[in-house]
Amino acid sequence: MKRKEQLTHTHTAILAAARKAFLTQGYQATSTREIAREVGITQPALYHHFSDKEAIFLAVVNEVGQEAKTGMEQVIAQVRAGEQTDGVEALAAMTEVLLKVHPRDVFTVLHGSFRFLQPDNQGQLGRLFMADYLQPLQAFFTLDVVTLQPGMNAQEAANFYLTSLSPLFNNFHHVGPADASPHQQVVTLLRLILFGIAVKK
Amino acid sequence: MKRKEQLTHTHTAILAAARKAFLTQGYQATSTREIAREVGITQPALYHHFSDKEAIFLAVVNEVGQEAKTGMEQVIAQVRAGEQTDGVEALAAMTEVLLKVHPRDVFTVLHGSFRFLQPDNQGQLGRLFMADYLQPLQAFFTLDVVTLQPGMNAQEAANFYLTSLSPLFNNFHHVGPADASPHQQVVTLLRLILFGIAVKK
Repeated sequence: MKRKEQLTHTHTAILAAARKAFLTQGYQATSTREIAREVGITQPALYHHFSDKEAIFLAVVNEVGQEAKTGMEQVIAQVRAGEQTDGVEALAAMTEVLLKVHPRDVFTVLHGSFRFLQPDNQGQLGRLFMADYLQPLQAFFTLDVVTLQPGMNAQEAANFYLTSLSPLFNNFHHVGPADASPHQQVVTLLRLILFGIAVKK
Repeated sequence: MKRKEQLTHTHTAILAAARKAFLTQGYQATSTREIAREVGITQPALYHHFSDKEAIFLAVVNEVGQEAKTGMEQVIAQVRAGEQTDGVEALAAMTEVLLKVHPRDVFTVLHGSFRFLQPDNQGQLGRLFMADYLQPLQAFFTLDVVTLQPGMNAQEAANFYLTSLSPLFNNFHHVGPADASPHQQVVTLLRLILFGIAVKK
């Protein structure tokens, strides 16, 4: 392999190992030593590719966020094209993109890292979160397939949706009947988020 | 001080130090060494009172859970006595009990500890959670001041309410207008949980 190919190969391997570690263990519990060991390189070799642990983490969040964004935008395009006219099923498809991309919910990963980052990296993390998660979700909540409650805006709806997703990402909670399929569990939770648990009097 | 008084005094001091540490840092990040140092005793002296870290944690969860349960049951008694007839305000009062008792949401604390505990302690934790959190909340959702959606039961409502509370316990999210009072933030979130973000078509 030529040196340039070798560098690209190592860069990709670092990102893959870091992604697995950060998304399953969280930011703090993951070390650059562990990532380097997993890739089979030394720590100095790792720092040739990324300046520090924060830089690797941001690269992982960027990669994961891009996948989430692309997947959610495909669903939005289907709704706009009239191929999907059921609002709950469309939101279920967006949710299943997130479930596929993340082993943990995005808030647990991002919020868990936030206080360990330098201010400029906190800012970058916030911008990635806005662009890759909030914007596609806000776009969804402006579509015709969903009618928001009076006084509710798309940003509030997107925020509440994201904060209420956590039962899907752990087995401490269970959503719906014991024999519910993963898709039924998603739809059950989304009905709660969309339509609430109670009736207005 | 007599020996018995001294023992009671130390027991209370251990619980107070452990409560502060477990509820702010989580289970794993807290050590018995740290608790002993905070109280001003040796680790062997600590183990005279509690057999291990898990036993201290369960004692803390039991104490905190009792306070949560007692406070929530007072609100339920007020509703039953006709002193509180507004369902949203009643649930806001229950929520403010939890905010007062916990610096973190109960799921973050309990779920974060679960995988580190021995099976019988996991079982005890589950029973405390059922008795101190789920039961009072289920009791609330059977009251006349709230009407559940068709097909929804009180247990599902209590579960969804608890999983959706997390925005109140961190400053990563913000609920409602920027100048909203803590009470307004609670009410804003509860309206989302109770009545949803969208209108059924």
